[in-house]
Amino acid sequence: MDSADPPRGRLSRRAWLTTTSGVVAAGLVGTRFDAVDLSARQVPAQDPRSIPGRPPSELGSRAPGERPRRLPGPQVPSSSSRSPLHELDGIITPADLHFERHHGGVPEIRPDGYELLVHGMVDRPTVFTLSDLRRFPAVSRLAFLECSGNGNGTLRRDPSPESTPQEIDGLLSTSEWLGVPLSTLLREVGVRPTASWLLAEGGDAALLARSIPLAKGMDDALVAYGQNGEATRPEQGYPARLFLPGWEGNTNVKWLRRIEVSDRPTMTREETSRYTDPLADGTARQFSFAMDAKSIITFPSFPYALPDRGWWEVRGLAWSGRGRITRVEVSADGGRSWADARLQDPVLPKCTTRFRHLWRWNGSQAFLMSRATDETGYVQPMWDMLVGARGAGTSYHANHVRTWKVARTGEVTFAQGELA
Amino acid sequence: MDSADPPRGRLSRRAWLTTTSGVVAAGLVGTRFDAVDLSARQVPAQDPRSIPGRPPSELGSRAPGERPRRLPGPQVPSSSSRSPLHELDGIITPADLHFERHHGGVPEIRPDGYELLVHGMVDRPTVFTLSDLRRFPAVSRLAFLECSGNGNGTLRRDPSPESTPQEIDGLLSTSEWLGVPLSTLLREVGVRPTASWLLAEGGDAALLARSIPLAKGMDDALVAYGQNGEATRPEQGYPARLFLPGWEGNTNVKWLRRIEVSDRPTMTREETSRYTDPLADGTARQFSFAMDAKSIITFPSFPYALPDRGWWEVRGLAWSGRGRITRVEVSADGGRSWADARLQDPVLPKCTTRFRHLWRWNGSQAFLMSRATDETGYVQPMWDMLVGARGAGTSYHANHVRTWKVARTGEVTFAQGELA
Repeated sequence: MDSADPPRGRLSRRAWLTTTSGVVAAGLVGTRFDAVDLSARQVPAQDPRSIPGRPPSELGSRAPGERPRRLPGPQVPSSSSRSPLHELDGIITPADLHFERHHGGVPEIRPDGYELLVHGMVDRPTVFTLSDLRRFPAVSRLAFLECSGNGNGTLRRDPSPESTPQEIDGLLSTSEWLGVPLSTLLREVGVRPTASWLLAEGGDAALLARSIPLAKGMDDALVAYGQNGEATRPEQGYPARLFLPGWEGNTNVKWLRRIEVSDRPTMTREETSRYTDPLADGTARQFSFAMDAKSIITFPSFPYALPDRGWWEVRGLAWSGRGRITRVEVSADGGRSWADARLQDPVLPKCTTRFRHLWRWNGSQAFLMSRATDETGYVQPMWDMLVGARGAGTSYHANHVRTWKVARTGEVTFAQGELA
Repeated sequence: MDSADPPRGRLSRRAWLTTTSGVVAAGLVGTRFDAVDLSARQVPAQDPRSIPGRPPSELGSRAPGERPRRLPGPQVPSSSSRSPLHELDGIITPADLHFERHHGGVPEIRPDGYELLVHGMVDRPTVFTLSDLRRFPAVSRLAFLECSGNGNGTLRRDPSPESTPQEIDGLLSTSEWLGVPLSTLLREVGVRPTASWLLAEGGDAALLARSIPLAKGMDDALVAYGQNGEATRPEQGYPARLFLPGWEGNTNVKWLRRIEVSDRPTMTREETSRYTDPLADGTARQFSFAMDAKSIITFPSFPYALPDRGWWEVRGLAWSGRGRITRVEVSADGGRSWADARLQDPVLPKCTTRFRHLWRWNGSQAFLMSRATDETGYVQPMWDMLVGARGAGTSYHANHVRTWKVARTGEVTFAQGELA
């Protein structure tokens, strides 16, 4: 696998700087640098070194030409928006770019009237205000959140080649989540010994509700009122949401208003009409909570084009709802051969990990893939393995390997259809 | 040290929920929940569960009542603004709240015209465009950035008791910084064997320039074009800055336009008129680059007030420019006795670490302190030790222990003056 071998020895200047324009990606330049016509704005003609710049401000903003945006779905009204994975690097998602998925829109909830009721099979049914929650010992952690339907467009054999990572897998974001461990609240109210499940219900118009095993509530679940240092954003459940590290997005109930302790799952609408995986034999895989190991290359990807051959860094994200990522392999020949990518520190459990891999493009057609392994030993499956196991009717947990084609022109497209 | 001991066994509901209001902090509620008159806005009177919420959007925003803000300095025009440390929890600083310190304001630099010249004692003087920089293998890391003058108001014996953590130490922020290792660029241009220093110069109106030992450039220095996943913000050096993990802020030259390789420090204006530490004997401590271990309690702090006695979580930040934090101790009796705080994972080198410590306030006057130790064994000094070693004329690297007084009323004030 010559093309995916890392370079040996000192980097060659000639290999890196073969373009006079220095353009990394035609698509990138087109959308990011040219979208705003800088010449038409009131830009001082002077050299910035010759005039004082603007003074400090209370709140910063992006540079005029930088316009990363979420992508709301095409349906009207839309019920989701996607993070621009192909425009981000590192692991953090800025809060205003965190993906959305709502079942009844974003409710407006006043924090001073917020209440969380915890009741059911407990000794002391209790209403907690936001101030009550904030007073408890807190914890914050970096963790991904992913919609269980993320990437389900790729379960078909023919997704559009002109799909960006945002369109394919943009229902994925990473934040530092802050809150009180749910286990603390459960100890406060005194859970009865025969209890085994929880019902978590949101305060939105959908009254979204999910059944959660008590064991998860006692493990690493948070009632989260903070995100990336500040208050949780309205679209993410302000003032407080359930956060279940590694578990499918909809179980992380937003605008959390009620937790009922019980001894069985409640079988709510969202776990019967939705969020089950139909299998080929007519049965369904239900309560498939954990998001299995997955990865996607975010560069090169559509809409980018490689302007010339030579060394390029393949960049992507890998994550697992079951713990740490231990390995990411990259193939440049459609899966015939694989090489280990570099995992960038910190590699945190139930958090996205950035992987990077040096690849020398020789100018011929190439099929780029990434394959993640997590600490349980689970390996991200190929498309035919996943669909073979689940059947054609499944539409959740589409964590199979993603493939990009690099054409001889340098143009990159989503290539799942071509390889199948 | 009875009052600082952690509680034993199961949390007591009675200890936690003694207020009917459940108010955590009078100041917090006053500034965050009441600053916006919600009743005057067009808020639907209906229960949010009975009406559809707003649909997804391209770019999120904060909840109306949440208004964290940087605090620009009082001078006109100001040259800095401070992060609201007392309103944040966790370790990440949202990019629009990252502190600022400029010497000539924020220049407006177009990314398509950006160039970085690397020259001097090199084999191949080279101009790198932004696209060139982006093509090199990248790295991102979570790291703090702190102005060397942060906290210098506390070097006086009488700082105002009504000082917030933002006012005292708000020239500190933490981001995920992304860029190309400077060592990669230096290998590209071929540094001559006798070189030992770099000059880094910014493209702002101040042409801020600092001398940097070549060893740091070959170690963990980055030319950073990304911050928290997206493009570096204009106030932070857009489109690219030098980032020197753990080193005083001004050496992390923003709007980086030139690196000159040499065999001696250049002795620029900013390392003679500023950023040296005068000592008591009339000499000066120059090139004091690394930020020593430091910590500050962010809650309870001014302007908060504890509404009642009982268990409270003391929360704060600790960081060291020399590596990982290994220990944070908390005292509630002005330094007579200390207890180990809990360090929250991940504990990363040259990054802020969140510490948390359960403390039972018995209603009497208390003096809260935190003291950090890093992996080199260095222990954050007390005020008299620091000023004794440096002399009264010093105004940088004020990393001594901070003290808050909790009055019998529950009101919290900055107490350095009282204990001295």
